[in-house]
Amino acid sequence: MKIIIAGAGAMGSRFGLMLHRANHEVVFVDGWQDHIDEINKNGLQANFNGEEIVENIPIYNQNEISKINYSADLVILFTKAMQLDNMLQSISNLLHERTKVLCLLNGIGHEDTIEKYVPYDNILLGNTMWTSGIEGPGKVKLFGDGSVDLQNLGVGQKQIANEVIEALNQAGLNAQYSSNILSSIYKKACVNGTMNGLCTILDCNIADFGKTSYEDRIINQIVDEFIAIADAQNIPLNKDEILDQIKSSYNLETIGLHYPSMYQDLIINHRLTEIDYINGVIVRKGEQYQIATPYCTFLTELIHTKEELLGVK
Amino acid sequence: MKIIIAGAGAMGSRFGLMLHRANHEVVFVDGWQDHIDEINKNGLQANFNGEEIVENIPIYNQNEISKINYSADLVILFTKAMQLDNMLQSISNLLHERTKVLCLLNGIGHEDTIEKYVPYDNILLGNTMWTSGIEGPGKVKLFGDGSVDLQNLGVGQKQIANEVIEALNQAGLNAQYSSNILSSIYKKACVNGTMNGLCTILDCNIADFGKTSYEDRIINQIVDEFIAIADAQNIPLNKDEILDQIKSSYNLETIGLHYPSMYQDLIINHRLTEIDYINGVIVRKGEQYQIATPYCTFLTELIHTKEELLGVK
Repeated sequence: MKIIIAGAGAMGSRFGLMLHRANHEVVFVDGWQDHIDEINKNGLQANFNGEEIVENIPIYNQNEISKINYSADLVILFTKAMQLDNMLQSISNLLHERTKVLCLLNGIGHEDTIEKYVPYDNILLGNTMWTSGIEGPGKVKLFGDGSVDLQNLGVGQKQIANEVIEALNQAGLNAQYSSNILSSIYKKACVNGTMNGLCTILDCNIADFGKTSYEDRIINQIVDEFIAIADAQNIPLNKDEILDQIKSSYNLETIGLHYPSMYQDLIINHRLTEIDYINGVIVRKGEQYQIATPYCTFLTELIHTKEELLGVK
Repeated sequence: MKIIIAGAGAMGSRFGLMLHRANHEVVFVDGWQDHIDEINKNGLQANFNGEEIVENIPIYNQNEISKINYSADLVILFTKAMQLDNMLQSISNLLHERTKVLCLLNGIGHEDTIEKYVPYDNILLGNTMWTSGIEGPGKVKLFGDGSVDLQNLGVGQKQIANEVIEALNQAGLNAQYSSNILSSIYKKACVNGTMNGLCTILDCNIADFGKTSYEDRIINQIVDEFIAIADAQNIPLNKDEILDQIKSSYNLETIGLHYPSMYQDLIINHRLTEIDYINGVIVRKGEQYQIATPYCTFLTELIHTKEELLGVK
């Protein structure tokens, strides 16, 4: 299959590398020039479950797409949320009327952006449990196992989901069909929509937050807002399950000692956060559906204020 | 006049010292033993507008009130908000049926606590613009000018307010009668209820917060909640005036570079904050009046969570 990985960061590199090794025709598109230069010069270097490997995979800057003569069967979107619109604009010439587009970004509501560039029936949404780390330009570290759940957005388009699942499984990516991907995506967003913003604004790790006597009431308020917005879109969510999943993240033996990605982005690396694609989506959809979302609103405002205070906006 | 200063911190020391110098019979009651020991041994030492002075003023630990044989005409309350109830319990034996009690604490709703120990008709509420700094046990720094506004709570008790105003003015404390002290107290609480909690949770000074593009919408939400609660109690507030006052605090040439007292308490000194007596009062009265106060609620929860994270609870 001809596959474009749009966004060749840590996760995009993993998927591209595994698909390339399974003999798919993979092309990376990215915006990080040092990374692009290193891969063009020395290949993508990976520590792949302990083994040092190098794969030569074409990579282009999204600003030089005109150089590419390539008509993709599948695009896998792996940008940061705030880069999605720009990336879709950049690659729109590489899409034909039957190019399938699978979105594996964190956060919710990306379909609203993708729809501007891609026919609804060609869009697939997914959730992945794979992990990956970038070590520097052109270098990634890929350990452990993972999986991908995905689903077609268009009614009656299950066949295209199955084609993508087959391609991913040829590469060992453990893909499976989900009959309720929006519920899974919202469920994951509830975890991110609490731990990310709260640990960032409170300057703590997940377990430390979990030990405070206010964790329960704060996460309840935020999750209630996510559920109200999901409900307005007929996306079923089970609150008890969600609270269980959030609280299980406090566990020191799993990810409790972890500082969430938003903390790393903002507090450690002084980068813009993805808050607008997590809690901020709840705020926007709340305005649309006339549903009050004060906790998500205040948290989004606080994170944006912190971005400005740290000079990253 | 026989006056007890209940709470001999920075501001209590200023008032006690100035009243003592005007020949009132002042006694301090406090809970900080090093401060008490130093004042007992060497007197209260002050840099009073540049002049080093020492005044010998009796001071007692609130746990040894039984040693005092003193019947006060006036008690001025100057504790930290969370110490008020305990202080009133300690000194209750020193109050007679006509002892006037003037509350000059920061925050709102203290009358609900004072009423448990003092007849309503004897209670006075006030607001002060004096400042003061404590340099160490027994040592204060008193610079600049200030004023006090105060009012009787009991209907028809203006005479007792006038008696207190006269005593304060003998000491140069610039006291004046206010016909709407609750409005003034709420107005001040709006400034504290925004800048204190926000600068503390965002780790910034007042001017830095004021420069962000979110300041206006965040303070509007919080002030709206204060106004709704004031309104339910028939306390008139002018929103434009309040917003002006908050925004004038951003000025670098006044207090913009200042880190609010709550920031100093929690972030610098790892002490409990007074959030329960500012935004927390809005939350409690919101429950009582069935008025939604999500911004004050979330901010109060965040500050308490931060207290726990810093191990001060």
